[in-house]
Amino acid sequence: MEPMGEFEEIDFLADSGMSSAGSFREMIDAPVEDAQRERIARMGLCAALDGGDPRMAALVREQGPVAVWEYLRNSGSTRATAVRVRGVDVEAVQQATAACGSTFLIPSDPQWPLGVADLAWSEPVNGLGGEPWGLWVSGEGDFARACSRSVAVVGARASTAYGEHVAAELGAELAERGYTVISGGAYGIDAAAHRGALSCGATVAVMAGGLAKLYPPGNAALLTRIRDAGFVVSESPPDCVPSRARFLVRNRLIAALAQATVIVEGAVRSGAQNTVSWALSMSRPVLAVPGPVTSAMSVTPHRLIRNGEATLATCVEEIVSVLEPLDPRRETLPWAKSGAGGPLSDQERTLVDALPHGIGVSVDEVCARLGWNVVTVLGVLSRVEQAGWAQEYRPGVWRQPRQPPSQ
Amino acid sequence: MEPMGEFEEIDFLADSGMSSAGSFREMIDAPVEDAQRERIARMGLCAALDGGDPRMAALVREQGPVAVWEYLRNSGSTRATAVRVRGVDVEAVQQATAACGSTFLIPSDPQWPLGVADLAWSEPVNGLGGEPWGLWVSGEGDFARACSRSVAVVGARASTAYGEHVAAELGAELAERGYTVISGGAYGIDAAAHRGALSCGATVAVMAGGLAKLYPPGNAALLTRIRDAGFVVSESPPDCVPSRARFLVRNRLIAALAQATVIVEGAVRSGAQNTVSWALSMSRPVLAVPGPVTSAMSVTPHRLIRNGEATLATCVEEIVSVLEPLDPRRETLPWAKSGAGGPLSDQERTLVDALPHGIGVSVDEVCARLGWNVVTVLGVLSRVEQAGWAQEYRPGVWRQPRQPPSQ
Repeated sequence: MEPMGEFEEIDFLADSGMSSAGSFREMIDAPVEDAQRERIARMGLCAALDGGDPRMAALVREQGPVAVWEYLRNSGSTRATAVRVRGVDVEAVQQATAACGSTFLIPSDPQWPLGVADLAWSEPVNGLGGEPWGLWVSGEGDFARACSRSVAVVGARASTAYGEHVAAELGAELAERGYTVISGGAYGIDAAAHRGALSCGATVAVMAGGLAKLYPPGNAALLTRIRDAGFVVSESPPDCVPSRARFLVRNRLIAALAQATVIVEGAVRSGAQNTVSWALSMSRPVLAVPGPVTSAMSVTPHRLIRNGEATLATCVEEIVSVLEPLDPRRETLPWAKSGAGGPLSDQERTLVDALPHGIGVSVDEVCARLGWNVVTVLGVLSRVEQAGWAQEYRPGVWRQPRQPPSQ
Repeated sequence: MEPMGEFEEIDFLADSGMSSAGSFREMIDAPVEDAQRERIARMGLCAALDGGDPRMAALVREQGPVAVWEYLRNSGSTRATAVRVRGVDVEAVQQATAACGSTFLIPSDPQWPLGVADLAWSEPVNGLGGEPWGLWVSGEGDFARACSRSVAVVGARASTAYGEHVAAELGAELAERGYTVISGGAYGIDAAAHRGALSCGATVAVMAGGLAKLYPPGNAALLTRIRDAGFVVSESPPDCVPSRARFLVRNRLIAALAQATVIVEGAVRSGAQNTVSWALSMSRPVLAVPGPVTSAMSVTPHRLIRNGEATLATCVEEIVSVLEPLDPRRETLPWAKSGAGGPLSDQERTLVDALPHGIGVSVDEVCARLGWNVVTVLGVLSRVEQAGWAQEYRPGVWRQPRQPPSQ
C-alpha cells in the first residue's frame, strides 16, 4: 500500500528539528502538563491527520502531543500537515462528539484500553503502524474493561452461509463465556459475529469512519444495537467518512483491542488477512476456522494454518484455551496451587503479580506499580525470569509467560 | 486393543530357547538357503498366524522364516501356534493362490515393495507391529514400482458427499501426476479415492481378508476394476476372511506401502486415525483435509492438524509438495545444480546417491550396494552427514534427509 499523501509532509518537521528528542519542548513557551491541553491536542491531531503513520506516531510519542500540536498550530508553514492542523476547528469537533453521544478518550483516561499500547512497539504492516492519539467511543459502561477480555472475530464480507453460521455461533459462545467480541461492523462475517454476541452479551464495532454516521449504512440498525448494548469506537472524528486507507488503519485497532484474533472466512485476497497481520505484528494469538477445501472463502484460513501463522480452531473451547493462561481474571493462579512458600519468595511473587499477562510493561512501569527502585526490580526480575515466571518479550518490555513453569 | 489370542503362545518359543539369536539355526539340521523353502515357510507362516505380532515378527526376523517354520512344523508341541502351523496345507494355499490369479511375493522378489521394511523398525501401534512375511498380490505390472511413488488416501466409511468429492478429486489428480493411490477398498472415502484414481491411472487396494473373495462385497465391481487396472494386495491367504484385528493390521500395510498418508474425513473415533498412527510410527508424512467445523466427519482431520500430527492439505499440490523432495525420480538432483565439483566429492556423491530417500538402509546394505568396505562407508557417511546430505534416522539406519542442505 502507498503511504498516504500527507505522510511525506512530516519531513518538514524533521527539517525543523522536531524529530531530535528534547529540542522541541524548548521551542514552545507554555507548560504541557495541562490535561485539557493534551485532550485538545490529541483530538486536534486525530481530526487533522489520519492515524497509522508510524513516523508521525513516533514523533508524537517522543515530543508529546501538545508540543507537536501547538508547534503545528503556530507554525506559518504552508506544508499540507501544518495547513491541515491549522484548519481544524476543535470546538466544532467537540460539539460533534457530544452531538453523536460519544466520548473522546485519551491514554490517561481510566477507560483507555491497554491493548493499543502494543501498537507503539509492533512492526509496521504495509508501512502503516503506530498507536492512536485518541479514540471516540459510544456506549454504556467501562470500555477498557470490555476490551480486557476480548476476542476479535473477523472475516470476509462476501461470506458463505457456513461462515456466517460459524461466526454467529462463535460470537454467541464467546459472549456467553464473558468475552467481548470485537469486529469491524462490516457485512458478512463481522455482522454475523456481532449478531451472535448481541444475543448473549456485549460487542465492540470498530469503525473506519466517524461515529456520527455509522458505516456501512445497510448495517445501521445492527450498529445502533451494538452501540446500545456495547460500544462503537473510532479514531476518526465523528464526521469523518471512511476511506480505503482508514479501513487498513482501522484493522490495526481491531487486532490491538482484542487479546486474540479469529478469522472465520477469507478469500485468497482478504481484508481479514490484514487484521491477522496486525495481530501477528503484536505477537497476539491468531486462530483460523477451517472450512470446505472447495470453498474459495476458506483459502485464507487454510493458508494461515498451513503456514503456522494461525492455530486451527473448530469451537469456542479451542479459542478460549489459547487465552485462558493469559486471563488475568483466573481465580487460581498457578503458584497458588503449590501452597505457601512454593517456588517463589513473597517478594518474587509480588513482582510476578505486578506483571501483566498479554501486554508487557517497562521496568519503569514495574517500579512505579510496586514503589520499588530499579535495582531491586531488575534483581528480582532476573530471578523470576530464570524460574520461568517472567518473560522479556520485547527489549525492556516484560510480562508473565503464556505457559507458567510446571511445578 | 487386546493382543490376539495366539500371540501368548509365542512364550513357549521363548521357553524353548528360540528367542536367543543364533541358538535356533543349530536346532534344525537342513541348510536354509533354498529360496523355494523360504517361500513355502513364509506362505505357511502367513497362513497359520495372523500378522502384526511384533514379537513373532522379531523372532522370524532374527531366526529366519525357514527356521521358525520348520521348527514349528516338526515340534510335537500342543500349543496353539504349533498346532496351527502343523495344520497348514501349503499345497492347498498354493492352489488357492493360483486359482484367484494372485502371486505370493516375498522380500527377495524384485516386485517386493521396499516401504514395508520400515515396519521392522517402527514403534508398535496399540501393541501391534512388525513387517509382513509375504504378500499376495493380484494385478498386472510391477507392484514395487507402483508403490515406489504412492500416496495413501484414507478416511471414513460413513463419509459425506463433500468428503467423497474431495477424495475422488485428490485420487484423480494424484493418479494424473503419476502417483499410485493406495487405500483400503472400503465404502466411503476409500472407494471414492480408488474411483478417482481409476479414472486416470493405477491404484492399490489393500485387503484385510484374502484375495479369493474381495471385501466388502458391495464394492466387488470396484475392487475387480482396481485389480484389473492396478493391484489388490493382502498378507492373508486367499481364503482368509477379514476380522477386526486383521483390519487394524491391514492398516499398517496401507501406511507402509505409501510414501505419505492423506486423511480426508474421520469421525471422533476413526479407523483412518489408526492408519495415520502407523504412518506416524514410520515417520512418514501425514496430511489431513479440513472440512466444515460443523461436520462430525472432519473432527479427526482437524484434531490431527491442531496437534501438529498432520499438515493441512487443500489440494494435490500441497500433498505432492511434501513428497517431491523424497521423490527418487526427480530429474534435477539438488547437488547437480551447483555444477561440477560442488560441495561433495565424487566419492561422497556416489554414497549419497546410494542412500534411499524415504526408507533407510543399514551400513551393511550401503557396503553391499557400493562394493566398499565398512570403514570407507563409515568415513564417507560421517562427512556427508556433517554436510547435511545423509541422516541417521534410526540407529544404524541411513537415508537422505528430507530437506537437502541449501547451497
